[in-house]
Parts: sequence; structure tokens; C-alpha cells
Amino acid sequence: MSRIQAADERQYLEEVFDQLGFTKENGQLLADTLVDADLRGISSHGIQRLAWYRRMIKDGTIVPSREPKVVRELPGTVLVDANQNMGQIAANLAMDKVIDKAKKVGVGIGVVKNSNHFGIAGYYARKALQAGLVGIALTNTRPLVVPTNAREAFLGSNAFAFGFPASPHPFMFDGATSTVAGGKIQLADKKGEKLPGQWIVDKDRQLVKDPKQAEGILQKAAFSEDQEGGGLLTLGGVDEENSNYKGMGNSIVVELLTGILAQGSISADTVRGKHDFSQFVFAFDPSFFGDPEQLKADATAMLDRIRQLDHVPGKTIWVPGDREYKYLAENKQRGVSIDDRTFEEIEEIGQELGVQVPAKI
Amino acid sequence: MSRIQAADERQYLEEVFDQLGFTKENGQLLADTLVDADLRGISSHGIQRLAWYRRMIKDGTIVPSREPKVVRELPGTVLVDANQNMGQIAANLAMDKVIDKAKKVGVGIGVVKNSNHFGIAGYYARKALQAGLVGIALTNTRPLVVPTNAREAFLGSNAFAFGFPASPHPFMFDGATSTVAGGKIQLADKKGEKLPGQWIVDKDRQLVKDPKQAEGILQKAAFSEDQEGGGLLTLGGVDEENSNYKGMGNSIVVELLTGILAQGSISADTVRGKHDFSQFVFAFDPSFFGDPEQLKADATAMLDRIRQLDHVPGKTIWVPGDREYKYLAENKQRGVSIDDRTFEEIEEIGQELGVQVPAKI
Repeated sequence: MSRIQAADERQYLEEVFDQLGFTKENGQLLADTLVDADLRGISSHGIQRLAWYRRMIKDGTIVPSREPKVVRELPGTVLVDANQNMGQIAANLAMDKVIDKAKKVGVGIGVVKNSNHFGIAGYYARKALQAGLVGIALTNTRPLVVPTNAREAFLGSNAFAFGFPASPHPFMFDGATSTVAGGKIQLADKKGEKLPGQWIVDKDRQLVKDPKQAEGILQKAAFSEDQEGGGLLTLGGVDEENSNYKGMGNSIVVELLTGILAQGSISADTVRGKHDFSQFVFAFDPSFFGDPEQLKADATAMLDRIRQLDHVPGKTIWVPGDREYKYLAENKQRGVSIDDRTFEEIEEIGQELGVQVPAKI
Repeated sequence: MSRIQAADERQYLEEVFDQLGFTKENGQLLADTLVDADLRGISSHGIQRLAWYRRMIKDGTIVPSREPKVVRELPGTVLVDANQNMGQIAANLAMDKVIDKAKKVGVGIGVVKNSNHFGIAGYYARKALQAGLVGIALTNTRPLVVPTNAREAFLGSNAFAFGFPASPHPFMFDGATSTVAGGKIQLADKKGEKLPGQWIVDKDRQLVKDPKQAEGILQKAAFSEDQEGGGLLTLGGVDEENSNYKGMGNSIVVELLTGILAQGSISADTVRGKHDFSQFVFAFDPSFFGDPEQLKADATAMLDRIRQLDHVPGKTIWVPGDREYKYLAENKQRGVSIDDRTFEEIEEIGQELGVQVPAKI
């Protein structure tokens, strides 16, 4: 594990994306989404995705020269075709459109089809926040999650992000709808720790505690057509009596609003044929409902009351977004953390494309 | 426990609501929401709420003669004031408005303030479905739920309903965002069963297994200003390692979109002063994104694949809505189930208002 300055990471990524054939504007956007994730401590969606993006360009899954297109519009809705370029570019366009709509008719929704990985969902919800709006972003993913009572993965880990104005930072809920995302298992593996709680099951729905076994299960579920069974659990864990069907419900809602509405692949089908993902973005103008400063103050007061509730000694009540903005402030000072394998990949790509690799600090 | 015919329940309720001073149209709507809940097996939100509604009318919390008012409109948004009448009446108006908006600009959202109990959230999502749209409805509630690591209830059980067209019945996700709703605990008590799993904790965050103790905790949390601590768990259960903060996040999203946006009481404050609830409704037109018959067929195919996944022998994979529509079909034939205490209340109210009580079958 080492650290690099975020500014160096940004410069490196912009040059790499330029070399890979993206327009300057699109390259800057892609770099921004990855640096932003690393700054917020969401390393799983930061620069460590670069080698994968590189492979998808090499194999023709991603065509960097293409531009996303608006297929159809109404005053409140937009359908965007990512046109086989990165999800970030199309989702950014869709959210820009939706923000305009919300400013005119009060609300807007957009669906992105023929898309790919779009970084962290929170990035697009924050775009809405920056425009003074409330924002939501959803994406489907590869199949990683076993429904209630099922023994094979079918649903995606299907991210849900929601941002609402508050001080000193917005309420920012951003993560997989499953109990955990695959990244948490990789992290446990790197630390040599057993998996706690109820995160993942094998083909007999027995809890898996060994992170290497867990990674093997997820690798097969996500990237092959031969399911060997098992996968991540829905929120609610292994037992139906703890209402894990509600976690399944949340995940299916995302499938319906992404792969189904976009008429693209559902998560289960991203392992075969067309490797497309789909996204859904939503924004509305809170100032229609009340004075925006008052709404922000009311939200802040509620969140502060939650943080200060009587709680278990020695524990903290983290409101969604608190950890992320804490990392953001810290990492702006101390740089972003890069694991050794990712750093090797950065060096290889830099050498291949003639781009200077960020210095370790 | 006994059964009555749904038609008799409807006639009784319409006459009672007429006697209580509601307009004919509003009384029919109220009756329909309660009969609909009972038919779907969601007895907690059916006729057993009548005695409570009656008490709120007597103490002036509900004023049956008032009509909800549209406060403000944009092409995509509406703010409705329930004007101290039942939530059903205002939420029905808001969803009607939102459906019109979605048909014109593609999408609509509505917030209801100064509201009260509105029955089952799914009722309004289904209104959108009946109009060929996708629908969502949310409400805050009384404070029943302890956030992650907290020892006192603050959040509501905050219902979330989402409907999407499918065959032979829609995908219909409708329930509390907490692990379970309070009604499940009452049911366990009536059956004399211990509480399974991780549903509710006491003031030390120790799991509570005795339903009577659990009901005591919820009664205090929901109806008094003196919190004795404890409450329902967020989805994800008692341990932070199982991501119960995601369940908390879902619940806070509902608080923000209801009590905060409406500038009404948040769930925590419904125990003091103004006993208002707030609702949020949302609909969009799926035909903007693709042929509605194709979208419905695609959703159906995905849900069928989930139902048929390899699963634990002897268990069933129930997709959200499956149980509800099964009960609906059965109860249309055999009548709706009424517990003994509720039947006594029905008799008392019938006697008081001179309304004939439905015959037991």
C-alpha cells in the first residue's frame, strides 16, 4: 500500500485517457470520477478499475471515440444511448439533461442503455446536489447476489445512490443494495481476515468465512456462464425470518429501473453475449416544496439528532456520507491510497502509453 | 379469528364513514383502501385500523368534512395539503395529479403534508399501475426504529411501495423499511410464539424474544415522549457488520422525502404536538422507454427466472407481490379474516352509529 497525490493521479489519468482515444472532455470526466472515488476512500471504484477499462478497450467492448446520444426526450424524461462508450460519459449527459428538466418542470428521470461501468453512483447524485437539487442514481452490475432461498447468483449488487442537501456535508447514501459489495471481500483478503457476519454463501447456502473461497465464488458468478452456485447475500442476510426478501426487493427494483427499462441485459445476462449495463438517474427541485435553506437546515437538524442519540458506549452512529466526507477531507491532505497490485498496473500502462507514473509520497 | 365477506365489509365501512361525516366519495375511498388491505392479507392496515380512526375523529386530530388542497403545481410536481383529513384522501389526490403529470411530461412527483395514516402504501403505487405507469409511494410513521448502534427509537418504520407491470400480477414491493413492521410482532403474540431472528432490541440493544415485552417497547416508543429505549431493528439486523446502516439509510431516505420535504413532523416528532404524517408519491410512464407490452414481458420473464432458480429444497422463492396476490385471489373467495378484538370493535362502532355489522361466515 502506498499513497500518491490526487493531483498527480488526475494528471496521469487524463494523459492515459487521451492516449486511449477519448476526447479531452470525456477523458477529464473519467479521470474525475476515479479520483473522486479514491479521495472518498471508495478505492474499489477508483484508479484500480483502470486496467479493466484498458482491457475492455482492447477487446472492443468500449469504443472511446464514440459519443453518447439522446434517443428521445419529453419535458421530464430522457433516454440516452451510451453508444458503447464508458458509462460515466453517458450517465453524466443523462444527469445534465435531467437537471435541466428538474429546473424547468420540477423533476426529471433518465435511463442509459448500451452502457458500461459508470464509476460510483454517488458521483451523479452529487451532480444534482451541486445544481441545488436532490439526486438519485442507480446501476445494475454483474450477477453476484443470491435471492432469498436461492443457491445461485442472479441479481446484481446493484448500486443505489441518494443525495440530499445538509450541512456540513450532504446526506450521501451510496453503495451496493447487497449486504456488502465484492470490494469488501477483497479488502478482507488483503488484510488476511476471516469474513465477519453474513456476507456470502456457497452453493448450499452455507456461510463462507474464507475470503479466498468467497472471491472464487464471486469470480465464477460474475464472469462465467457456468454457475457453480453461491454468491453475496441480500441485505437481511441468510435467513428469511430476518426479511432478506426485502433486500432482494430493493435489488429487483434496481433491475427493473435499469436493465428492464433500458431493454438491455439484466445483471444475470451480462455474463453472456452483450456485456452492457444500464443506469437510471433522477433529480427534483426541493425549492418547489419549501425554502431550500430551511429544508437544508431541517435535514441537518434531523441528521444531527440521529448522530447524537443514546448509543452503545464506544460505538459511533455514522449517518450515510459521514465516513466518505471524512476520508475526502483527509485524503485531500495526505493523498489517495493505492494497493501494490494497482500500482504495478499503473506503471505498466504508463510505460505502454508513454505517460509519467505518479510519484509515491 | 373469524371471516366476513369483503362486500359486507365494504358496505359496513361505507356506512360508518358516512355516519362519521366523510363525503360519499371520500368514504368509498377509505373503505376501499381498508378492504383492499384485508383482501391482500395485510390485516394490520385493514379494518382493524377503524377504531383508531374513530378515536382520532373524536379527539379532533382528523376532521372528516375537510377536503385536501393543491398548494402548488409545476408540470412535474405537486404539493398537497391534507388539511387534517385522512392521508388516503390526500394521497389519492396527489397520485391522481402525478399520474396526469406523468402522462404529459413523462414523470411526476407529489408530496402530501399535514396528513395522517394513509393505509397501505401499495394502494397508491397500484393506482399508477392501473393507469399503465410505474408507481412509488412512501410514508413516514411513528418512531419505532433504532438506528445503527443506537439504543432508542427515532426513525419510523417508513413504508416503501414500488409497483412495476408484470404477469400474471405486477411486481409489488410494499412494506416497512425496517426488518419487520410492528404488526408481525402482534401476530406472534396472538399465536403465542417467541420472536424469531433479529427483529427488536431493548434499551441495551439486546435482542427481545418475548412478543409482549416487544409490544411494550414499541407502545412506549410510538406513543409517549418518555423513551424507555429499544425498538425495531433496521434491515440488516442488530450487528453493524451486517450493514444495518444500509437499512438505516433506506429509512432516512424516506424521512427526507416525507417529513422533511413536507416541512411537517419527522417520525421522531409525531409523538409530541402536531400528530402529522407526510407522504411522497411518484409515477412515470414506461412507454416512453419502450413498448409497454415488451417491458411487461421482459419483467415477467426476469421474475419467472428468479422464482425458478436452483433453491433450498422445500423452500419457495417468493418474489415481492406473490404472497399478496395469492391472498387476494383466495380471500375474494373465502372472505377476509378478522381477529376477535377487531370484531368486537366493529360491533361497538356499528351499535354506536346504527350500522349493521357484517355477518360472520
